[in-house]
Amino acid sequence: MSRTLFDEAVALAPAGEGCWTGHTHPGWANMIGPFGGISAAALLHAVLLHPQRLGEPVSLTVNFAAAVADGPYELRARPARTNRSTQHWWVEMLQGGETVLTATAITAVRRDTFEMTEALAPVVPRPLDLPRSDPARVTWTRRYDLRVVEGEPPATWDASDSGHSRSLLWMRDDPHRPLDWLSLTALADVFIPRIWRRRATLVPLGTVTMTVYYHAGPQQLAETGTGFVLGQAQAQGFRAGYNDQAALLWNEAGTLLASSHQWMYYKE
Amino acid sequence: MSRTLFDEAVALAPAGEGCWTGHTHPGWANMIGPFGGISAAALLHAVLLHPQRLGEPVSLTVNFAAAVADGPYELRARPARTNRSTQHWWVEMLQGGETVLTATAITAVRRDTFEMTEALAPVVPRPLDLPRSDPARVTWTRRYDLRVVEGEPPATWDASDSGHSRSLLWMRDDPHRPLDWLSLTALADVFIPRIWRRRATLVPLGTVTMTVYYHAGPQQLAETGTGFVLGQAQAQGFRAGYNDQAALLWNEAGTLLASSHQWMYYKE
Repeated sequence: MSRTLFDEAVALAPAGEGCWTGHTHPGWANMIGPFGGISAAALLHAVLLHPQRLGEPVSLTVNFAAAVADGPYELRARPARTNRSTQHWWVEMLQGGETVLTATAITAVRRDTFEMTEALAPVVPRPLDLPRSDPARVTWTRRYDLRVVEGEPPATWDASDSGHSRSLLWMRDDPHRPLDWLSLTALADVFIPRIWRRRATLVPLGTVTMTVYYHAGPQQLAETGTGFVLGQAQAQGFRAGYNDQAALLWNEAGTLLASSHQWMYYKE
Repeated sequence: MSRTLFDEAVALAPAGEGCWTGHTHPGWANMIGPFGGISAAALLHAVLLHPQRLGEPVSLTVNFAAAVADGPYELRARPARTNRSTQHWWVEMLQGGETVLTATAITAVRRDTFEMTEALAPVVPRPLDLPRSDPARVTWTRRYDLRVVEGEPPATWDASDSGHSRSLLWMRDDPHRPLDWLSLTALADVFIPRIWRRRATLVPLGTVTMTVYYHAGPQQLAETGTGFVLGQAQAQGFRAGYNDQAALLWNEAGTLLASSHQWMYYKE
């Protein structure tokens, strides 16, 4: 496959043991700095590139300690503990010597076991039977083909209460790119903030921490290929400036690819 | 309030800048080593004791890198980034110089904002109208007064498929202890493993990572006091040796106290 803007944005250059340098990409600009999902993907990329890595990613928690500024960054990844079949990672993004993202990740050698999905994909129209959404005002949304089933973004910003914050939408990299753990990580952050969805009001906000559990292994990623991914997200509670978001991502065949959670800060 | 076995188990002695020592408590023994929830609580305790701490805990992710052995441990907590109203933490538990738990935490100064709960507490019998569960074979379960509404533990270990993995139960520290962030953290780990619940089979397993988002601030904790906490937990997917668990905890008044997620390893 040809290299896409996604690959460019998560590209890293080696800079010593467990260190890499990268650069924010103008094609992934958010309102301020880059889209959080692409930063999370770049961070996971450092783990995947590490010569001591054992196995494949099974979980990632990224904490957005400060706004990532447009420009260069440094990534540091180091195994905290390596077991027989699991490995625990400390990961950090720095800019100008200051920590901007902290993270922990787990990689593991996985084996076939009992499998079962309890969170079944909802029955919804097929992606190509839905209109493609117009890109939002922020650049990074042009990197995705989004087809909304429900509630994203609000039809009008009229401060009406939508009754709940659930969104459901089909998502695909544009241009097409076979799904991998990096792009799956970014997809888990594509949803608009739940407080905007619920209140139809553009209050200031930001993700403070995000976790992805990778249900998908190499086989499920390959089966997904360049197909659409169905994402569902909903807040469970809003209070004192913070709300959570519980998200699930399935492929077109209904295979659960990831479960993800965020905790967002908001004003007002 | 008098000091309980919970306080004893999370007690820490200062051991230099950002360092504390603690000791596993026989009253909180699990099958091997201590109950994971009490280790997570001890780890958060180090953050709360840190002289540079800003604000109250808003989130915690603990990674169980290795089995915690019965005996002494060292905790290290250090701010990775301190902003105007949020602070990001690296936290680590070591035994014999080796990392056994890694964690990141966020503390913050919270302010009153819009608030709303979407995940409403299910309508269930009151705790005192339900029988108290017999303690399980592991010691730490004696530290809780548990009253099961649904599905925990399976009535018989007969390898039957329960159809889903949801559990719903009332939980309270025994002896009574006013709820704080430490005990709330431990409560988020009280549920039996979802794979046992779903399959009624005691396969080997362990939590590899756990996240708690603290919806409760001081007011909600004070309102909960020594009352029961209703916990709901369900797996969304099981595959290739890992399953997630999505959990919610409310107080008796129906206030959402925490949302929590786990990712568990299992064999077979």
